[in-house]
This record gives sequence, C-alpha cells and structure tokens, in this order.
Amino acid sequence: MKILVIGGGGFVGFNLVAEMVARGHEVTVLGRRAAPVRPLPPVVTYVQGDLTDRGGLLAQLAGVDAVAHLASSTVPSTGDKDPIADVQVNLVGTLTLLEAMSEVGCKRLLFVSSGGTVYGVPQSIPIEETERLNPICSYGIVKVAIESYLDLYARAAGLSHVTIRASNPYGPHQGNTGVQGVIGTFLQRAQEGRPIEIWGDGSTIRDYIYVSDLCHLCVEAIESPRTGTYNGASGHGTSLMHIVDIVREVTGRQLDVLHRPGRGFDVPTSILGIEKARHDFHWKPRVGLREGVSLTWRWLRAGMVD
Amino acid sequence: MKILVIGGGGFVGFNLVAEMVARGHEVTVLGRRAAPVRPLPPVVTYVQGDLTDRGGLLAQLAGVDAVAHLASSTVPSTGDKDPIADVQVNLVGTLTLLEAMSEVGCKRLLFVSSGGTVYGVPQSIPIEETERLNPICSYGIVKVAIESYLDLYARAAGLSHVTIRASNPYGPHQGNTGVQGVIGTFLQRAQEGRPIEIWGDGSTIRDYIYVSDLCHLCVEAIESPRTGTYNGASGHGTSLMHIVDIVREVTGRQLDVLHRPGRGFDVPTSILGIEKARHDFHWKPRVGLREGVSLTWRWLRAGMVD
Repeated sequence: MKILVIGGGGFVGFNLVAEMVARGHEVTVLGRRAAPVRPLPPVVTYVQGDLTDRGGLLAQLAGVDAVAHLASSTVPSTGDKDPIADVQVNLVGTLTLLEAMSEVGCKRLLFVSSGGTVYGVPQSIPIEETERLNPICSYGIVKVAIESYLDLYARAAGLSHVTIRASNPYGPHQGNTGVQGVIGTFLQRAQEGRPIEIWGDGSTIRDYIYVSDLCHLCVEAIESPRTGTYNGASGHGTSLMHIVDIVREVTGRQLDVLHRPGRGFDVPTSILGIEKARHDFHWKPRVGLREGVSLTWRWLRAGMVD
Repeated sequence: MKILVIGGGGFVGFNLVAEMVARGHEVTVLGRRAAPVRPLPPVVTYVQGDLTDRGGLLAQLAGVDAVAHLASSTVPSTGDKDPIADVQVNLVGTLTLLEAMSEVGCKRLLFVSSGGTVYGVPQSIPIEETERLNPICSYGIVKVAIESYLDLYARAAGLSHVTIRASNPYGPHQGNTGVQGVIGTFLQRAQEGRPIEIWGDGSTIRDYIYVSDLCHLCVEAIESPRTGTYNGASGHGTSLMHIVDIVREVTGRQLDVLHRPGRGFDVPTSILGIEKARHDFHWKPRVGLREGVSLTWRWLRAGMVD
C-alpha cells in the first residue's frame, strides 16, 4: 500500500514506519520539522507539512491508499498548559485531515489514540474498549473528540477508520527528556548517574507496551479491512516503583528517586484489556517488560540516541 | 448579582435575561451582532463581542459575579456542515472564556449544554445525567468536550460551574425559520397556511420544555452554590406527529405534512430524567405541552415576532 504517515517523525511513528517498510509498503512521512529528528530509512519520502494546512495535505494525499495519523503537538503532561493550542493544532488539525481525505476520496485511516487518557479514572480493570470515556486532561479530551468525529465522518463521508488506543509505549527511539515516558527517561538518568523524579508515591500503575508490539498491531490494523476501536497494550499493569526496580536490575546502576507531589492528570491505575485486538488481528504482545527494558538499554548504551 | 450573559440575544438567552432581570440581577449581554435581534429590557446593557476575543471578554468580566454561557454559532442540524468552524467558534471560544475568567478571578459559570445531543443514542430511558456520553453530531461532540474542559478548569483553576443539559426548549421568541425547533416552525407554518416538512416518519420522540421552565431552572442554578451537571427538561416524551396534532388543535388550522428522508443526527428517542434538578433545586416544570403551545401561539398571533 501507499501510506502517508502523519507524525512519522515521532517515537511511535518512527518505529511504525520501519515496520511498514519491512512489510513492503511505500511510505511518505509528513512532519512539522524541516528534517526528521530521527533519520528515516532511505526508501521513505519525508515532507515537511502541517496538519492544519489543507492545501499541503491535499497535495500529499494524491494516490495514497491509507493514512496513519499519529501526530500530536502535545503529550498528556503538556496539553493542560495551553488547551486552546491543544484544540487548535490537534483537533482542528485532525478535522482538516478528515476534510482533505473526504475531498480526495482517501477512505482508510489508522488513528493512534490514547488508552492512557481517554478513559479517565476507570470503573473496572482491565479497561475494555466499551468502558465509558471520561478524560480528565486536555490531551484525553481532544482524543475523545477526535474519536467521535471519526465515527461522524464514517457515517457521513464513508471514512473507514481503525483506532488503536495505545497504552504506554516504550522502547528504542523514545525521547528521554522527561515528557514522553518514564522508561526512556529512567534509563537515560541511570546512564548519566542522575536521580529521577517521581510524581506521587510511585504506586501509579500503568500498562507498558514495547513499541514494536504496538507497531505490529498498527500495521495489522491498517492492512485489514476492519473498522472500530482497539486497545493496543500489554494487558498487564506495573507500578512506577516496580519500573524503577527493573531499571536498576537491568542497568546495574543505582537510581536515586526524588518524590514530587502527585499530578492532577494522573489516574491511579490503567491496565487495558486486549482481547478484542488479540481476537480480530490474531495479534499478541511478544516482548515482556524486562526484555523490553533490556533491549531499550542496549540501544541507549550503543549510543544510538537520536 | 452582576451577571454577564453570553449568547443573551438568542432564544433561550433572551428569556433567561428577562427572568434574571425580574429576579433583580444586574445583567450585561454579550452578543455577536451590532444590536440584539430581540429587543432587550432597557435596564440591560448590550455589548457586541465575540467569544474568541479574549481582550473583549476580559473587559466585560470586570466586576462580574457570574457568567451564563449560552452562545453557539451552530444548532444540531448545522454543526455537521462545517465541523472545523464549529470547533473554532464554540470550543475554542469557550476555552477563551474559561481562560479569561481564570485571569480575572471570576469563578461562577452557568453553562447551557445540550441534553438532546450529548448522550447520542441512549442506553436507557429516561436518560439520567450519569448516562454514557456518546454524541453523534458535531454540535454534541463540541458540547461534550466543553463539559470535560469545565471539569478540568474546576480542578485546575477553581472554576465553580453548573451545567444544564437542556432538552428541546420552545416558547415565545424562538426562531421559526426551521433550524431552531419544530414547535415555533410548525406554528409559523400554520399561521401562514403552508405545509411543514418532517424528516423521517414523525415517530421521533423528544422532550420539549417550555422556555420559562428552563429559565427558572437556570436562574436557580446560577444563584445556588451547587456545581455539577443537571438535565433541564420536562421529563416527558412526545412524538413529532403528536406535536403536529397539538399544533392543529391549538391553532385550528390544517397543517399539511411533507415527509423527507430521516437525518443521520436524529436519535430515535430522547427523554431526560429530571429527578436530580427537582431534588437539588426544588424545581419542577410548570407549563404542560398543550398550554405551552397555546401560549406560544398567542404570542405569535399577537404579532410579537422579533
């Protein structure tokens, strides 16, 4: 397939593009920067562009079979600082993409949503896709609105979309500056011999998925004719303090912890049910947490930081 | 109280302002037009302004005790035509208001949401406030996002908001050009001796509330210290064909019906539970449907069309 990946310069996007190329797809990446932060495979075309630029999107959509949309200008911890910008870039941007896709007749869309924020404080664990959506941060509010609009465009314009609600992906090529995920950040700090900061007491439980497992699911999903919404996760929960223990074990380094006050946008426990994805895509996560942390540490130690 | 009413030039807003004035409040109305469509009471100050103009909002918020926000540039049947504009004006506009209120320290907000669209196709009837939110039109998606942001600003900025999810209000001063509600439109057509159009077979059931009943609830809500979300409705359902019968009876006119294909944004049945509002505000709807239609017809016959 000829696939346009929007946000393909990001952490998950970069890994997804690699997987798509390996599966023989022809990939163009649209990113906001003049050049990709992470060097893309030579067979991939990179185009600088903005999700809110309809003309630019129309030009790139010509002849495209499917779009993978992973772009976001925010992460859960930054969206609340400027909700107007969050809406302007990410919600209006996505609507601009949907309008452009309608205009050129491109129907197939993979959207990577946020399993960690759309549900808010869940009513049951593991969280199934049918759980009530009740986001408590701007990032999640925008993702929920986007998901609603995808259904609206499916009814009104024949959009065929499959949405993957990703939990907490980690692995090679993740940013490690403290905003994009704890595992990359902790490993980086371990390497540097610097302490880490933990918001709250470290009991917060999250569902960490190794990025290649998530990307396998995304490619299965976009290649299939299926539509609808799927959790993309490991199905297991791990506390922050247990992550610290694993990082200490894997790296053999001391890792001092500074505790900071809890953050309003952190829900206490988030573990996603993955039976729907398992069943419909004959998929399952293959890389366990300790193995994934080891692989990420090996990548970091090899100096392959982007 | 000194109250700023945003969208006070609209149908519900106009009636709400009259009720606020009758209760002794000092009211300023902010509207998009150079002059209000419906002539406001002389004691009310009218200011032209835009919800997305932060500077203008800041100027009007000085010394204000509470804000009533009823502004919308769309109705359920028009939002889907241009979702980007819907988001830009109504969601970004509301966020701009919330930012401005935070900046000046104005904490109290009444928001009129949409009980007819935020729930989508309901799982049970009557629909209680705890029902899952699953909007199927842009108008409803935007209202849901706004409601989520109100909760976020409550946690992050101390906003004290009370939200009324209105069902289908009708009564004097409603527009009758076909977009704002069937009762006003049907009465107008009866008066003119013209046929009406009905989308679908007329079995669609809605919860119609006389506008003064809704406005009584809104004023009780904004005057109270309560926060949270309440349905503002009659608690009763009436089919479209039954509305036609009532209009025929009340007006004594023949009313020919042209049936049109059903619309995607119409849910089959919407009846809202009102026990929470009854209990917390010692409020109940006082005007029955036949009486309300009669009062509206009398107003229309008296030539008091705005």
